[in-house]
Amino acid sequence: MSTVQIVEVGPRDGFQSVGPLIPTDRKVAVVTALYEAGLRRMEATSFVSTSAVPQLADAEVVLAAAQSLPGLDPQVLIPTVRQAERALKAGARHLGFVLSVSEAHNRSNVRRSPQASVQDYRDILNLMPEGTRMRLNVATAFDCPFGGPVPPEKTLALLDALLEERRDIEVALCDTTGRVTPGHVASLFAAAMARFADVRAWAFHGHDTYGMGAANALAAWNAGVRVFDSSIAGLGGCPFAPGATGNVATEDLIYLFDGLGADSGVSMDALIAVAREVTAIDGAQVGGRVRDAFAARKCRMEPVA
Amino acid sequence: MSTVQIVEVGPRDGFQSVGPLIPTDRKVAVVTALYEAGLRRMEATSFVSTSAVPQLADAEVVLAAAQSLPGLDPQVLIPTVRQAERALKAGARHLGFVLSVSEAHNRSNVRRSPQASVQDYRDILNLMPEGTRMRLNVATAFDCPFGGPVPPEKTLALLDALLEERRDIEVALCDTTGRVTPGHVASLFAAAMARFADVRAWAFHGHDTYGMGAANALAAWNAGVRVFDSSIAGLGGCPFAPGATGNVATEDLIYLFDGLGADSGVSMDALIAVAREVTAIDGAQVGGRVRDAFAARKCRMEPVA
Repeated sequence: MSTVQIVEVGPRDGFQSVGPLIPTDRKVAVVTALYEAGLRRMEATSFVSTSAVPQLADAEVVLAAAQSLPGLDPQVLIPTVRQAERALKAGARHLGFVLSVSEAHNRSNVRRSPQASVQDYRDILNLMPEGTRMRLNVATAFDCPFGGPVPPEKTLALLDALLEERRDIEVALCDTTGRVTPGHVASLFAAAMARFADVRAWAFHGHDTYGMGAANALAAWNAGVRVFDSSIAGLGGCPFAPGATGNVATEDLIYLFDGLGADSGVSMDALIAVAREVTAIDGAQVGGRVRDAFAARKCRMEPVA
Repeated sequence: MSTVQIVEVGPRDGFQSVGPLIPTDRKVAVVTALYEAGLRRMEATSFVSTSAVPQLADAEVVLAAAQSLPGLDPQVLIPTVRQAERALKAGARHLGFVLSVSEAHNRSNVRRSPQASVQDYRDILNLMPEGTRMRLNVATAFDCPFGGPVPPEKTLALLDALLEERRDIEVALCDTTGRVTPGHVASLFAAAMARFADVRAWAFHGHDTYGMGAANALAAWNAGVRVFDSSIAGLGGCPFAPGATGNVATEDLIYLFDGLGADSGVSMDALIAVAREVTAIDGAQVGGRVRDAFAARKCRMEPVA
């Protein structure tokens, strides 16, 4: 049986998009429930400017809670050298760096050019102690909210610069807008995987904004990708990408991979229960289809006790 | 450039699921607008018991209106010999027969065994004048709302009986519940297309209930299917399949196929306008993602005049 790794990004990508502050203990409860549903990788939080993103000001506490769960591999998103230092000081063992192929999006997101972010990335790699790991998130790898489709050669050229020194990392190509379609997903992964054959792992981060969430994941899976980001209940979106609501829902991806016979280690019933809990968070914008489909089936087809 | 045929089923599958009676001239307006958006195939209505389905009691009028549009190939769904006679008398040139692989679903849908429906189908073929065409819709080809997954050999055995005499027809394998996943879609089409290589055309009819609408269509496309059913704004569902809300939305499929470089002849902007009009129909249950995504993009990214 083949296996698939799901990286649950709800506690970072999802929570970050919620306006009202979520109490830290509720975040930790969601992280714990996701872990208990079988998820073993998670973007647990982000070390970012606490004034820019007050929702994630409790990063140290949430990371510590996630690290207390045996066998969970929590990664934390960091956009700059300073925040990487803060994360490492807090005990992070797995950093997720993010930069954009699109200059406009990178400037909007982290207020610097992609080239400056490449230098930041190199500096962060040099900071990392032995045994810590890097996930490299390449935003707008396919499409930019400001500029539209991103030429594959532009993404590959940025990867040339990023992967020049070290390739013992996991690289996620991110469809920031949700506008990509499966052919583009397949061709870019094929080109990248051929060009950088010794990269540790490839991941796909997709949105369901245009209903392509599962189809794009399928295309990436068929191209050989085995690591997928998703967000419980479809929570989230990119606050810097207008219209990019809706990470693909974890329960929808698990439904897809269960059907493909790929083992994720996740219990669907437990996951659906967490998804329902997440929809009740004040200010949560949710998506996905499987949660409601299960509810309708239970409601209409099972005898009511 | 490759081409794809979209069979718009909203005027039948969609309207049938709407409770309040839709005025006939509004139905004709939707059919006309869909045609003007570029659609050239349509399940325009169904000839069914007018007491069981009063919503489609105006089948003769809607069919006549559809047949007045130059180049449109309207098909009409017929479940029995008597209704086929009624449709042919009304001038139908393209019949869509439906039966289910699942005995429970066939009995629930048309109150007879699949074997009895096979005999009906043969009788209808014998009724059809020269030059009229048959679309054979095989419901619950993958999964049944009452019995769960349908073994591929059961679907293939029913096709053996159905295709024994004539193969100059189009065969649609229908995911009635929306629960199928892409691997099952791919393997059943591969088996069926190998076993019945001389069938005129294969089609896939899918639902988006579990978020697999585009992914399953992609799997069918990759298997060689070039004809796809979909419903404008995701209108519809099967009234006899509990929980099976949500045909895949036409605008979502067009988005997929536009991205794959497959020409459907459909204008997305015109299609979105029709989809919005359809969401305003009293009692309409709609789905799909692209319509809202376009609205959000327009609203957030374009200068307001």
